[in-house]
Amino acid sequence: MMQFYIDDLIKNALLEDVNYIDTTADYLLDEQRSTGRFLAKADGVLCGLEVARRVFTLLDPEVTFVGRKQDGDRLQKGEVFATVTGKTAVLLKGERTALNLLQHMSGIATATAQAVELVKGTRAMITDTRKTLPGLRPLQKYAVVCGGGRNHRFNLSDGAMLKDNHIDAAGGIAPAVEKLRGKLGHMVKLEVETRNLEEVAQALKAGADVIMLDNMDCDTMRQAVELTGGRALLEASGGITAGTLRQVAETGVDIISIGALTHSVTAFDISMKIQPE
Amino acid sequence: MMQFYIDDLIKNALLEDVNYIDTTADYLLDEQRSTGRFLAKADGVLCGLEVARRVFTLLDPEVTFVGRKQDGDRLQKGEVFATVTGKTAVLLKGERTALNLLQHMSGIATATAQAVELVKGTRAMITDTRKTLPGLRPLQKYAVVCGGGRNHRFNLSDGAMLKDNHIDAAGGIAPAVEKLRGKLGHMVKLEVETRNLEEVAQALKAGADVIMLDNMDCDTMRQAVELTGGRALLEASGGITAGTLRQVAETGVDIISIGALTHSVTAFDISMKIQPE
Amino acid sequence: MMQFYIDDLIKNALLEDVNYIDTTADYLLDEQRSTGRFLAKADGVLCGLEVARRVFTLLDPEVTFVGRKQDGDRLQKGEVFATVTGKTAVLLKGERTALNLLQHMSGIATATAQAVELVKGTRAMITDTRKTLPGLRPLQKYAVVCGGGRNHRFNLSDGAMLKDNHIDAAGGIAPAVEKLRGKLGHMVKLEVETRNLEEVAQALKAGADVIMLDNMDCDTMRQAVELTGGRALLEASGGITAGTLRQVAETGVDIISIGALTHSVTAFDISMKIQPE
Amino acid sequence: MMQFYIDDLIKNALLEDVNYIDTTADYLLDEQRSTGRFLAKADGVLCGLEVARRVFTLLDPEVTFVGRKQDGDRLQKGEVFATVTGKTAVLLKGERTALNLLQHMSGIATATAQAVELVKGTRAMITDTRKTLPGLRPLQKYAVVCGGGRNHRFNLSDGAMLKDNHIDAAGGIAPAVEKLRGKLGHMVKLEVETRNLEEVAQALKAGADVIMLDNMDCDTMRQAVELTGGRALLEASGGITAGTLRQVAETGVDIISIGALTHSVTAFDISMKIQPE
Amino acid sequence: MMQFYIDDLIKNALLEDVNYIDTTADYLLDEQRSTGRFLAKADGVLCGLEVARRVFTLLDPEVTFVGRKQDGDRLQKGEVFATVTGKTAVLLKGERTALNLLQHMSGIATATAQAVELVKGTRAMITDTRKTLPGLRPLQKYAVVCGGGRNHRFNLSDGAMLKDNHIDAAGGIAPAVEKLRGKLGHMVKLEVETRNLEEVAQALKAGADVIMLDNMDCDTMRQAVELTGGRALLEASGGITAGTLRQVAETGVDIISIGALTHSVTAFDISMKIQPE
Amino acid sequence: MMQFYIDDLIKNALLEDVNYIDTTADYLLDEQRSTGRFLAKADGVLCGLEVARRVFTLLDPEVTFVGRKQDGDRLQKGEVFATVTGKTAVLLKGERTALNLLQHMSGIATATAQAVELVKGTRAMITDTRKTLPGLRPLQKYAVVCGGGRNHRFNLSDGAMLKDNHIDAAGGIAPAVEKLRGKLGHMVKLEVETRNLEEVAQALKAGADVIMLDNMDCDTMRQAVELTGGRALLEASGGITAGTLRQVAETGVDIISIGALTHSVTAFDISMKIQPE
Repeated sequence: MMQFYIDDLIKNALLEDVNYIDTTADYLLDEQRSTGRFLAKADGVLCGLEVARRVFTLLDPEVTFVGRKQDGDRLQKGEVFATVTGKTAVLLKGERTALNLLQHMSGIATATAQAVELVKGTRAMITDTRKTLPGLRPLQKYAVVCGGGRNHRFNLSDGAMLKDNHIDAAGGIAPAVEKLRGKLGHMVKLEVETRNLEEVAQALKAGADVIMLDNMDCDTMRQAVELTGGRALLEASGGITAGTLRQVAETGVDIISIGALTHSVTAFDISMKIQPE
Repeated sequence: MMQFYIDDLIKNALLEDVNYIDTTADYLLDEQRSTGRFLAKADGVLCGLEVARRVFTLLDPEVTFVGRKQDGDRLQKGEVFATVTGKTAVLLKGERTALNLLQHMSGIATATAQAVELVKGTRAMITDTRKTLPGLRPLQKYAVVCGGGRNHRFNLSDGAMLKDNHIDAAGGIAPAVEKLRGKLGHMVKLEVETRNLEEVAQALKAGADVIMLDNMDCDTMRQAVELTGGRALLEASGGITAGTLRQVAETGVDIISIGALTHSVTAFDISMKIQPE
Repeated sequence: MMQFYIDDLIKNALLEDVNYIDTTADYLLDEQRSTGRFLAKADGVLCGLEVARRVFTLLDPEVTFVGRKQDGDRLQKGEVFATVTGKTAVLLKGERTALNLLQHMSGIATATAQAVELVKGTRAMITDTRKTLPGLRPLQKYAVVCGGGRNHRFNLSDGAMLKDNHIDAAGGIAPAVEKLRGKLGHMVKLEVETRNLEEVAQALKAGADVIMLDNMDCDTMRQAVELTGGRALLEASGGITAGTLRQVAETGVDIISIGALTHSVTAFDISMKIQPE
Repeated sequence: MMQFYIDDLIKNALLEDVNYIDTTADYLLDEQRSTGRFLAKADGVLCGLEVARRVFTLLDPEVTFVGRKQDGDRLQKGEVFATVTGKTAVLLKGERTALNLLQHMSGIATATAQAVELVKGTRAMITDTRKTLPGLRPLQKYAVVCGGGRNHRFNLSDGAMLKDNHIDAAGGIAPAVEKLRGKLGHMVKLEVETRNLEEVAQALKAGADVIMLDNMDCDTMRQAVELTGGRALLEASGGITAGTLRQVAETGVDIISIGALTHSVTAFDISMKIQPE
Repeated sequence: MMQFYIDDLIKNALLEDVNYIDTTADYLLDEQRSTGRFLAKADGVLCGLEVARRVFTLLDPEVTFVGRKQDGDRLQKGEVFATVTGKTAVLLKGERTALNLLQHMSGIATATAQAVELVKGTRAMITDTRKTLPGLRPLQKYAVVCGGGRNHRFNLSDGAMLKDNHIDAAGGIAPAVEKLRGKLGHMVKLEVETRNLEEVAQALKAGADVIMLDNMDCDTMRQAVELTGGRALLEASGGITAGTLRQVAETGVDIISIGALTHSVTAFDISMKIQPE
Repeated sequence: MMQFYIDDLIKNALLEDVNYIDTTADYLLDEQRSTGRFLAKADGVLCGLEVARRVFTLLDPEVTFVGRKQDGDRLQKGEVFATVTGKTAVLLKGERTALNLLQHMSGIATATAQAVELVKGTRAMITDTRKTLPGLRPLQKYAVVCGGGRNHRFNLSDGAMLKDNHIDAAGGIAPAVEKLRGKLGHMVKLEVETRNLEEVAQALKAGADVIMLDNMDCDTMRQAVELTGGRALLEASGGITAGTLRQVAETGVDIISIGALTHSVTAFDISMKIQPE
């Protein structure tokens, strides 16, 4: 990601967390210096290291931040993956914002990696959705990639998806696809949401690039795979959990999209231990 | 919350989600109108209703949004708590952003209400922490209040908390409190983080307004309550789960702060069913 | 486009043009009211009507703006396509900003329509490029659509294009496509830039969705069309002028992209005649 | 121009062009480094060099950008006027934004220089107008100066101009000037728009600093010059083309303002050739 | 001033003053309604009425704000000049921001009016300077006009002023003026700062539009007036107080600029009394 | 304060003061370099040094700014407390903005120090209020601390204050305090505004943390101090001047809040003398 994109987000987060003064640190600490060590408190996948670095260097360009791992790397419980050295007041001022970001992003990467692991050996790719948190979509989508997943469309401009309301308004899948193709740019893919095999067949015939299988059972999905025969990509979507993920992948679908990757994130536990120099 | 505060956040979220055009809706739908019904898919506490309303009225001031419940009200599975009527294209454009916000905020309110329920009858209040998501702190803290919890300090300017690094730098709890009192405004409360009863005693003697009991076991906390005798507020913090919450509350502490309320949110499941007029 | 997206752009433009006071109008005019009539001074295609309306209603919500045409409609020389009624001071304050936007957008729509007209009857679609003016990309791309053209990718996130530098770095077209396919989301199309028929053949074999024929002569493009046989979309690009456009279209390519549509815009001549009530 | 003014504009342009990730470059290129050479593909005047430099250094402070020419210098077809060295991914990410800005600004400077050349030896100065593109006024006005032209007023606050509607509202040129003089600061010049010699005489008598000769023929302008005798500056405006520019200048007017310099810009053709190190 | 210019400033001020919640009002007041009456507690000149109105209508569009006076009108001690009616919580939330703005702007207008009164009957106009407070320049300059003063140049782009450093760098007043005239637009006035009569003579000869008499005594200023004979405007500047203002004005200078009007403002005392309906 | 907080404010101030070009300096000065010396023209307290430094380093990172004093230090008339060396054009461009900020902030610090001096030996602390200028609250509150004062609550979220309207709405002081305590977080202090001893007694009984004595005479305040006996902090507020400050302090109140510290600031006189190298 571009640094100045992250910069605005971090500045906003720091203003939110610090306001104009850190009463405790600014009134109490002078020139003491410390080193903070970032420690993984569980096994997982690291994400947000450059963001964390930037939290501290934005507060004070003279901070030294040393990463031992990179975004996307595996972390083991108890592992120190980065250190930051500088004025204690700066470390304390940035600590919470850095951790909030690291824990959220690593939480997403870790959950994604677990899902990817579960579908290993099948043709299914794990993707995110548009169920992201306001202002955090780029960070969240980046974390999904770090965890080994793929990104679904970023926004409503760069991919087209026909849902039932669009289809009803246009008088069916075929006329909807045709009308849309008459206006879409040639770089935009067209996905059609379907609820049963009949709709899958219609979408296929209409020339959809991707067909979403919405809340179908595994049997139906298997038939959809067979019916499609590789002429369109198939995306399984809706209510898929860790428990059912493998089964869904084994139906032969190409994509499994999981909203919970970004809408219900469990923070990955990381601590920052600060020790005076 | 002030509407124009929410406005900026919503505009940002919509730009992220829509970019400049909703290829599907803008190219396909004309003047069709629909009604969307917001449906709770589980039991919980509603939060974000005004935010959701604003998503749609910002897109089109002529949308009609009718709420049947208010923020903080209980929702039952299957209940329709709001409807929105307007152009189908507008409803589809705002749907995802409205749901992302409603589900996140209601998720926090619901989890908070569950925690509050668990400590009922004790003196303990449930509070949030600074472990929030960048840019969302006001919404998250508001959701905690809607769930029946209280807010901890909003930022580093409006409350002072002495942690071990501050204390070490100042040469002990007593000198740290004294130095800080010499600069703090009279409206700022001072909290001291402690790890054992000896530190609790020192904090008490130094005149702390609030004493945080960091990762102590219930026995130690009970002794801290006794030792303190109401001369300071006691906050239990660290690793408290639904399983241990009641026990902690029964030690007699005044406050239990829970980071997971805002850093590990499970989205509350809500759907929006759209039907043409 | 979303109104509040336009709003920020218009506010910025008005601050640039007015600064804090319109010395002439604010010091001289009181409550006089006028009507301004927007007059096309040439034949063309209208674009920017809602933007122009918003310039005035942002300055003063009580202005009445009546459009007789819509974006995308044909205008004839001498035709009055909209009127605006309100305080003379408001009309004078908004006049320049409204005209600057209308003339630029209608200039793009008109030039696009001329290009579309020239390729009528062939399979070629006219598209824009990323050669847009900073801050104006959404307005410019919208104007291309109003003129009957299509949009190429909006940005570097929502479409992938392999140029020679990418290809060299990856060791050839085949490995470049393969590596990229291993990371791209399923909604992102992949275009490969080619300079000769051999590269076209390689791109085709590698499975490109779109193949760009970069600065090829018409003969070569015809061969590329034949070679491809519909297995990928072909985009002609580079140095295409009004004089050569028809010939290029007749080679059978699917897309012709023209940078000049947005980087070298001739303002469409529109005047606003103001008459006191 | 102040660097941080340019910074915001460039950041905005890059966000527009890149969004959060450059799928092609970020997924494909690692640490390869290249040099890009900026090549003029026609004769003209350079403008935007510092802006182009900043595009790359904002993306990556470690890029090396070497200019061989400066803004305002002449360029010859085939001349390499700058090079940029750094990571290939950074060069590709900044290329389009840098070229879009350079081509637009150099296009304006080149057209201005052509106009200035045409009036050489007369007393006429070439100026821009307020017919600029939203958000780009400072860049466009700077480019006019680089081409040897002068700037007309920057906005409605820093210069006063009486048009027919102002004059009618105030009851004539004399009362309008008098009323305005009673409020204007002493640093603000007052220009009066006139349509015939009678109005020129009135404006002169009323004490206008500058008199605009709106769409007058050359004969009338010559008479206005004689009538005025240097007591006010005369500005020729309206419908002046390359074909008529010299004639207008020879009437003896002081200023010729040309809207097309900024509203109908032809991009100056520049390419950036990238070669791996 | 344009409403949306004021809007941003007010939103910023309200966020600063309220942050996300008004703990007292939001937790305590429900639907009670009140009327607030704005009362002048001294004699003076009103400024900021529309700004105050906007504070409340931004918080809640349903507030009713009734002004009995207008900006620029005289206020007498004890006079109620406006009332605002709405929810008590909204009134309390906006009260401080509205008063802060009203008191500051009316303070400037009142001080300006006192200065204007002191020079009555002379040819001297009272103007402000660039000694304004960051972010408040437009409001402060507007208040000066409301008090009967005039505005000096708004910024460094819209007026040129040669100070000693510029003059030294250019090798004297004459070459400095000549070099600058060769680049300035025709709408920009040129002022020269002088410290003695010799410099005044040089500035006059060089053709300065305005000559600043920097910290001269009244005798010297009188001689400068005589020397100049109306061929340039003369601005007295530096260390002028209420005690010396009349004398300075009687020297015959055209402009007296006073930094203290905006850099050392005494708030005009206004209270807002709130009574429940 | 965080540098990037200051950055936005400074950028805004510079854009306001410079707009896009400094016509005088940019057209006249080339590569000349100078040194500017900041000189105190009266005795006082320095505040804003880092802000002034940042004005110049933002304009040009290669400027050298050397401070001989720090914020909070005493300045003597005639003392040079900082120097800045760099291009003359940069120094002239930043001069006004740097001085406007330094003079305002040092003016506040100086006035605060004078008030603190006057109450020396009593228990009273001097605090600011929310009567600050829009956008400048953090700078103004910081200046109060530099002058030896304390900060009152920063905003309406981080402290609660019951005024008569709140109390009336809740049916008295006791029920108002009780209702509010039921919702406030444990880090928020509660202050009650009182107008007489009876209300002081009620506030005390209700358990207010702080009691404001609004516009009481010294006798009444003395009785309030006696009545309270240290069970709550007492804040004297309203109409306190340099003349009455000592007397008020001697009543034994804990806090004296003075709105004039920030709403009626007299700029501290500082000049910047520029000399070429």
